[in-house]
Amino acid sequence: MITSPVGLHRVVTPAGVLPQAAWRLDARPEIGADEIRVRVERLNLDAASFRQLAEKHGGDGPAVRDDVLAIIHDRGKMHNPVTGSGGMLIGTVDEVGPESPLRVKPGDRVATLVSLTLTPLAITDGLSTWDGRGEQVPCEGHAILFARSIVAALPDDLTPELALAVLDVCGAPALTRRVVAGYDRPRVAVLGGAGKSGSLALAAARRAGAARTAGIVPTAAERDRLVAAGVCDAVALADARDPVVLSAAVTGALGGPADVTVVCVDVPGCEHGAILSTADRGTVVFFSMATSFAAAALGAEGLAADVTMLIGNGYLPGHAEYALDLVRGEPAVRGLIQSRLEAH
Amino acid sequence: MITSPVGLHRVVTPAGVLPQAAWRLDARPEIGADEIRVRVERLNLDAASFRQLAEKHGGDGPAVRDDVLAIIHDRGKMHNPVTGSGGMLIGTVDEVGPESPLRVKPGDRVATLVSLTLTPLAITDGLSTWDGRGEQVPCEGHAILFARSIVAALPDDLTPELALAVLDVCGAPALTRRVVAGYDRPRVAVLGGAGKSGSLALAAARRAGAARTAGIVPTAAERDRLVAAGVCDAVALADARDPVVLSAAVTGALGGPADVTVVCVDVPGCEHGAILSTADRGTVVFFSMATSFAAAALGAEGLAADVTMLIGNGYLPGHAEYALDLVRGEPAVRGLIQSRLEAH
Repeated sequence: MITSPVGLHRVVTPAGVLPQAAWRLDARPEIGADEIRVRVERLNLDAASFRQLAEKHGGDGPAVRDDVLAIIHDRGKMHNPVTGSGGMLIGTVDEVGPESPLRVKPGDRVATLVSLTLTPLAITDGLSTWDGRGEQVPCEGHAILFARSIVAALPDDLTPELALAVLDVCGAPALTRRVVAGYDRPRVAVLGGAGKSGSLALAAARRAGAARTAGIVPTAAERDRLVAAGVCDAVALADARDPVVLSAAVTGALGGPADVTVVCVDVPGCEHGAILSTADRGTVVFFSMATSFAAAALGAEGLAADVTMLIGNGYLPGHAEYALDLVRGEPAVRGLIQSRLEAH
Repeated sequence: MITSPVGLHRVVTPAGVLPQAAWRLDARPEIGADEIRVRVERLNLDAASFRQLAEKHGGDGPAVRDDVLAIIHDRGKMHNPVTGSGGMLIGTVDEVGPESPLRVKPGDRVATLVSLTLTPLAITDGLSTWDGRGEQVPCEGHAILFARSIVAALPDDLTPELALAVLDVCGAPALTRRVVAGYDRPRVAVLGGAGKSGSLALAAARRAGAARTAGIVPTAAERDRLVAAGVCDAVALADARDPVVLSAAVTGALGGPADVTVVCVDVPGCEHGAILSTADRGTVVFFSMATSFAAAALGAEGLAADVTMLIGNGYLPGHAEYALDLVRGEPAVRGLIQSRLEAH
């Protein structure tokens, strides 16, 4: 097998695209000279993907499980065809090709930091130990990493479940830090502030010099948890899909519109509210995979809003270490994420 | 009628969303105190929208025309339900509400600078003078502008067709200028450099201090036209949907990867190529309405690419004047856009 560092050789259909754009990948276990095979222990489905599947099947766990199995079987990867999103996985390195540039060896426990949407994957246990009711999927099978993939060794001081949950969203705090540091003491609003990426983004914003931070949440229960955690200066309750209600909540919580608005809500329809909540020359960072490009682009134009809108990139150098350090240094964030894991 | 400056009172379904997110708007001609009614002369359909309609109907002009009429009738606006995009219009101000903040008066010829996706619109002539074969749609009818809408007076020194074509994409050169000016003598690639927004972006990049500019085009005919126009330092032929081919073309044309890559190609599937063509810490600006948010976000992550990705905002202060000045000052750009208009 002649291999490409970005995995072109694993694309079955359509020809000529990168693995993420492919409909189907070749997940055969035999590896090329620069590939790595991982024995998979657990998948962490993207929140938007799991939500879509759970809603499609009315919360019927076995039906969700069968759907996930069918997707992986049909596509050779866990790439939700509706949301376009994937997730990540943890496992143990099984075999390392002699020309792989990744610094791991057989036996290392690792998390993949590239999306499942481009990772060849095969499941061998029929997901028999998963109940289909949560984003974390225990499983047996194998996955393939390319030369340009990214893996992180699992830390010894955090449970694998916690590490996986944090690494899955580790681009969010890293990009939030970079954007907030580009302003002078900005006001920062995080939509979905009580979630994994949201609470990490709030902690990152405070550390990066935000003058005031606000977490916006959709329910009283999340509000109470976020207030108790103390990771932000203000907490407000609002439906992020209602632009007028949301912008009033943000302005009230921050004492004015946000200079930086971070969207971590995994439901569609939050683009207009985020734009309306943001000050002129401010920045909106969209991390939700439920974001519509057209709704954001045309929404800003329609509102005559001079805001910079960023597509949340899941990769920045050092993002994994930064997110893990935030969790180690911020017990409140760790508690929020831990409690989400235990709720499943 | 109690009115909202962003047009909430014109939303029929679903309740509570902004006009751009609405399925259906109320396009009644009676105006509120801060509204304006425009007698419409011509629509300019968004390029991605027109392409989708033309392909859907296999180039059958009357079928495209009937589809556009049906969309406007069903939705109360020209909002393509497949591409999510609209376009803009020109016309003559008919009536101005006493509380409108927009500085126009009855009889002024204007172009709307907010998208058709949020502009209440009714057509009264059945589009009988349009052949369904081009983006520019002569028509009779009326449109409604809100207090927070943006209009530009049509310039006297340019034909209405040319002014409309330029104003439709005037966000592209304005944002390109801002991004390019944020780098020190960057290399700039524009995908789709021979089109309206592409040629304006190339001219803006050169004026904003780019060290070297390259236009990437899909056909030999476009290559020859762009070379002859001389608006950029290099021209390369490549299919922007093929990441490997595209990044080789960009690197070859610029002598290295681009610091700023501007995507003006109105076909889906260009996200990965744009990312792969861009240097670390570079910026990709997506102007194409065919952009997939998930493909961009996950593509950058999958390629471990530390690039900033911007959703092209159609609004920046002064964008209309800047684009019109570029056309006045750059005969080559004017010629390219004029020849596109005449080709229809």
